[in-house]
This record gives sequence, structure tokens and C-alpha cells, in this order.
Amino acid sequence: MESIPIIKMGGCLLVSIQVDMHDQLAMRLQDDLTSQVVKYHARGVMIDISTLDMVDSFIGRMLGTIASTTRVLGAETVVVGMQPAVAMTLVELGMTLGMLRTALTVEAGMEQLDALESPSAEGAPGDHPEG
Amino acid sequence: MESIPIIKMGGCLLVSIQVDMHDQLAMRLQDDLTSQVVKYHARGVMIDISTLDMVDSFIGRMLGTIASTTRVLGAETVVVGMQPAVAMTLVELGMTLGMLRTALTVEAGMEQLDALESPSAEGAPGDHPEG
Repeated sequence: MESIPIIKMGGCLLVSIQVDMHDQLAMRLQDDLTSQVVKYHARGVMIDISTLDMVDSFIGRMLGTIASTTRVLGAETVVVGMQPAVAMTLVELGMTLGMLRTALTVEAGMEQLDALESPSAEGAPGDHPEG
Repeated sequence: MESIPIIKMGGCLLVSIQVDMHDQLAMRLQDDLTSQVVKYHARGVMIDISTLDMVDSFIGRMLGTIASTTRVLGAETVVVGMQPAVAMTLVELGMTLGMLRTALTVEAGMEQLDALESPSAEGAPGDHPEG
């Protein structure tokens, strides 16, 4: 169990973070995600953090790095299931995650990614977390 | 992180097991799953065990219990992503999981559940792991 599983669902990759992230695990997740985005031509990545009741700047940075990397490869990243306390902590840490898309549930995240793929939304790169 | 997150996707619930299961965690997962099957009127449950490179009789029994319970509530359970070594161990343990549906990937599991929901498959309760 030394890696976090990545679940492929249609054109999306889904990651559910359930364990404490340390440096190596975070690096490995980034590696695995980027290679799978390329391998499967994924258009979106969803990272479920609903079990995390604490997020520090390390995880915040990791999420930002993943989002930036996958975007370069053509896949948008949506962080889903953030708990209210986590959102408050991130703001207090000064990390507003401006680059990150967020959604309350996986289903909402999926809708957001679907909307991005449709041609009408192509010219709107702004963040609209809940549509 | 005292519980395993359950992800709702359409009419399905998806669980990705990434941590060592102990008694309490297994009990809690069963409780959470059954209550969410009822709450969301779920038609299917998928349990991803792709990160498990070892499965003992405890986990085998847990999977069987979950499948039996959800079936009573009207939701079929599909175990996805089983590693070859795990399959061999289960057979060696004498647990052939006859009651359990299995699929190689989440996508294949989803297809299997979709096929069950369509009226033409209603009268065929047999196990066809890979269609």
C-alpha cells in the first residue's frame, strides 16, 4: 500500500486521499498522475480530500503543483469534498488556491469537468466551483 | 481519517480501500455503506481493492458480508481491481467468493452494474465477472 490508487472513469482520473501524505508519497502521486494523464489522454483529474480533516501547507502546495502540471498536459484538476474546517485553515494559511478548481462532491466535480469539455465553455477559464 | 470515504457516482457508490482493515474500520465501513445504499437508493456498490497486495480471510469475509447485505437492500456489489496474487491467495484459502461479482477495473464494474439495471438482464442473476 505504498501508493495511492488512481481510478480511471471515462476521460477522468479519480484519486481518493485517505492516508497521511509524506514527501515520497506525494512525489509518487504526482508522478503516477502525470504519467496516467498522458497514458489515458485524460481530460480531467479529481482529487477527493473528504476524509482529510486537516490540511497543511505541504498538501496545499502538492495540490497546486498537481493542478499546474496536469493543466500543462491538458487536464483540469478539481479538488472535491473539502471540509469547511479545511477551507478555513487554508485561508488562514494564506493559501486561497486561486488556481485550483473545487467542488463539493465528485458528481459536481464531474459536471464541472464535463462543462469544460463542451465547446461553449472553452473560452471561460475562470473558476466557478459550483456552477 | 477514521473512516473510509464512500464516493457517490450516479446510482453507484464507490469505495477505494487503501488502509489496513481492522475490526472497527470494517464494521464502520459496513454500517456506512448500508446506510448510504438506503439514503441514496443506490443500485450498485463498487469496492476497489487494487492497492491491496494481500487479502486474508478477514477481508474476504468482510467483502462477502457487504455483498450479501447490500443485495438484500437491492444493490449489487462488485469487487474491482483484484491483483492476481490476491486471487490466488483467496483460492488457496478456500474462499472462491462465489457470491461476489468481480471486475478488473472500475469501468468494467460500472458496465456490469449498468447491464444488471437494464431490463433484459433482470432475469439473469448469474455471475459474469467480465461480461
